[in-house]
Amino acid sequence: MGVRCVAIRACGGGKIDPGVPRMAVHACGAAAAVVALLSAAIALQWSPLYAVLQRALSLHTAHATKDMENLFQLVRNIVPALTSKKHKGQDGRIGIVGGCQEYTGAPYFAGISALKVGADLTHVFCAREAAPVIKSYSPELIVHPVLDSSNAVEEVEKWLPRLHALVVGPGLGRDDLLLNNVRGILESTKARDIPVVIDADGLWLVAQQPALIHSYHKAILTPNHVEFSRLWEAVLSSPMDSNDLKGSTLKLSQALGNITVVQKGEQDLISNGQQVLVCNQEGSSRRCGGQGDLLSGSLGVMVHWALRAGPEKTNGSSPLLVAAWGACTLTRECNRQAFQKYGRSTTTTDMITEVGTAFSRLFTT
Amino acid sequence: MGVRCVAIRACGGGKIDPGVPRMAVHACGAAAAVVALLSAAIALQWSPLYAVLQRALSLHTAHATKDMENLFQLVRNIVPALTSKKHKGQDGRIGIVGGCQEYTGAPYFAGISALKVGADLTHVFCAREAAPVIKSYSPELIVHPVLDSSNAVEEVEKWLPRLHALVVGPGLGRDDLLLNNVRGILESTKARDIPVVIDADGLWLVAQQPALIHSYHKAILTPNHVEFSRLWEAVLSSPMDSNDLKGSTLKLSQALGNITVVQKGEQDLISNGQQVLVCNQEGSSRRCGGQGDLLSGSLGVMVHWALRAGPEKTNGSSPLLVAAWGACTLTRECNRQAFQKYGRSTTTTDMITEVGTAFSRLFTT
Repeated sequence: MGVRCVAIRACGGGKIDPGVPRMAVHACGAAAAVVALLSAAIALQWSPLYAVLQRALSLHTAHATKDMENLFQLVRNIVPALTSKKHKGQDGRIGIVGGCQEYTGAPYFAGISALKVGADLTHVFCAREAAPVIKSYSPELIVHPVLDSSNAVEEVEKWLPRLHALVVGPGLGRDDLLLNNVRGILESTKARDIPVVIDADGLWLVAQQPALIHSYHKAILTPNHVEFSRLWEAVLSSPMDSNDLKGSTLKLSQALGNITVVQKGEQDLISNGQQVLVCNQEGSSRRCGGQGDLLSGSLGVMVHWALRAGPEKTNGSSPLLVAAWGACTLTRECNRQAFQKYGRSTTTTDMITEVGTAFSRLFTT
Repeated sequence: MGVRCVAIRACGGGKIDPGVPRMAVHACGAAAAVVALLSAAIALQWSPLYAVLQRALSLHTAHATKDMENLFQLVRNIVPALTSKKHKGQDGRIGIVGGCQEYTGAPYFAGISALKVGADLTHVFCAREAAPVIKSYSPELIVHPVLDSSNAVEEVEKWLPRLHALVVGPGLGRDDLLLNNVRGILESTKARDIPVVIDADGLWLVAQQPALIHSYHKAILTPNHVEFSRLWEAVLSSPMDSNDLKGSTLKLSQALGNITVVQKGEQDLISNGQQVLVCNQEGSSRRCGGQGDLLSGSLGVMVHWALRAGPEKTNGSSPLLVAAWGACTLTRECNRQAFQKYGRSTTTTDMITEVGTAFSRLFTT
C-alpha cells in the first residue's frame, strides 16, 4: 500500500480521507505526513482514533486549503473546454428515468439541472400520464411517455446507444410495473457500460434487489439519510453506527462491490470502498424538496465528463469520486446563493437559477 | 380568574382581547389595568360597553405597541431555527385537499404559499381532472389525482402518517362525491390527531355537518364574512349580531366546542372560545381572489410549527391562536407590499412573491 494523504479544510471546505496515493500528496509537510501515515494504517481498524487524528489534522489549515484547491482543480480538469469545433450532443446527452402519477417535478429538476450544468440534450423517460406535465415545465426537455408501457425496456433501449449517462429514480415512485421496467433498463444500461446515477425510489428498487448494481463500477448511488439506512439494512446484517457516518459510507460501498456511494447530509460523504471524500462546501440549512434532483442531474453530466477525461485528468483518483465531489459542491453552492437571496422561502427552482453562476464561481478559472 | 389585559394598537396593529393572563400583561399602566379589569368583567356580558372601553383604551398607544411586540415575539418563538442538522421534511410536510373541475388555482396558491413560508414538502390531493393543471403551475408541488376516486380516503390515508398538517377546502367545490370523500378524510385526520385548517368549501361541508369537527381542538376554521354567516346559521339558532363581530367569533367558536375560528375581514378576528385576538396589520383594500388560499397554506405550516413548539414557547397562550395571528399578519403584509408595487392590478401571484420578504420583515429578528 502506498503513502496516503488526509486533506483537510478547517471549515466549509472539502476533505479527502485516506485514499488514492497520488491525490493531493505533494503539499503535505513532514508532521502532517507522519500523522497521515498513522491515520491511514488505523483508519479501517479503529474509527474513533481515526476521528481524533482527523481533528488534530484540521489545524493544518495551510495544507488543507492547498488540498481543497487540488480537489477543485481536479474537477476543473474534467470540465470539457467549450470550443467552436464541437457539435450538438458532444458535451452530454443525459437520460432521466422517472416521473409517474404523483411525481413530475423531480425528473424536470434533474433534467433541467443537467442542461444548466452544461449537457447539450436531456431525455426524460416517464409514465404516460406524467409526460405532458413534465413537457409543460420546459421546452428544453425531450420527454418520452414510455415508462409504464409493456415495451418500456425496448423503447428506452432504442435511445441508450446515444446516451452518455442515465439518472434513474427522480420521481419514479413505487408502482410495481414501473419498478419492473426500470429493472430491465438497468440491466440494459450495465450491458452497454453506460454510467448510471441512482437516486430516490431508484434506491428503493436497489434495496429490494442489491444484485442489480452490485460491483457495477459505473454506478453511483446518492442516498439521503433515510435511503442510506434502508440500503444498509438491505445489504449488511450488522447495525449501522450512526456515530461513524464516514465508516458506514465506506462499508456500504464495499458491501455493494465497491460502487460509488454518496451519503447526503450535513456534510456529503463520498466513497468507492477505498477512500472517503467529504464535501462540506457551505450551503444553507434550507431543506426544501428537489435539491437531490439538482444533485443527481448535475452528477449525470459530470460523471460523463469525468469518465471521458479519464484518470490522467483526475491525478489517478477515481473519476466517479471527483464527479460526485464536484456535483455535491455545486449543489451546496446553489443552495447558499439562493438562500442569500430568498432565505427561508427558497425553493429548488431558485437554486436551479443559480447553477450557471455557481458553476462559474467554483469551477471556472 | 386572573388579571386580563386588553392590548390595543392605535392603527394598523394587532389587539388582544381579554384572554390568557400571562399574555402581554406586563406593560399595562395603572389606569389601563383598572379599565382592563372592568372590561374583562363586562366583556362577555355586555359587548357594546366593552367596545366603548376598547375605544378608550386605544389612546394607550405606548402600551399597545409593547403588546403588539409581545405577539410578534410569540410568533417568532414558534418559527423553527434553520440548522444544518435538519433533514428534508422536518420543517413541514403539508397536505392540501382541494382542486376540482372548476378550481385549480386555489390549491396551488395554498401549496406554494406553504413552501414559501418554509415547509419542505407539500402534497395536493385533488380530482383527477384538476391534477395536470395544478402540476403544471409549479414543479415544486407533489400532486395526487385521487380525490374523486372510489378509494380516495384510502389513497389519502396512505400519506397521512407523513403529514404534519392538512389544509382542507381550497378549490374543493361542492360536488357530492368529493365532499363525501373529504368527510372520510377529515375523520381519518382527526383519528390521527393531525392539525387541520378548513377553508372555502371545506367550510360549506362543515356547515352541513358541524359534528364533523365539533370539539376537535386541532381544527382551525378560516371563514370570510359569507362563510361565517353560513356557519353561524348552521350552528346557532339566535340571529347573529353583525355589530359585534368579535363577540360573534367568540360565540361561534364556543358553539363548535371551542375550536379555533378566524373570521377574515377588515380586521381578522381569531378566537378559541376563550379569548379573541384581533389582527389589523396594515394590508390594502385590494380584494382579489386567492388571498384566502395564501392564508390557509401559510397557516398549515405555522400551526404545525406552533404545536411542535408548544405552549411554553407561546407563553401559555394557545399555539393555534398564535399561529393564526401570525398567518393573518403575514397575509396582510404580503397584500400591503404587493399593493405598493402593483396597486389595483395586484393579484395573488404578486402577493405570493412577497412571502419571503414579508416573513423576514415581520418575524426575523
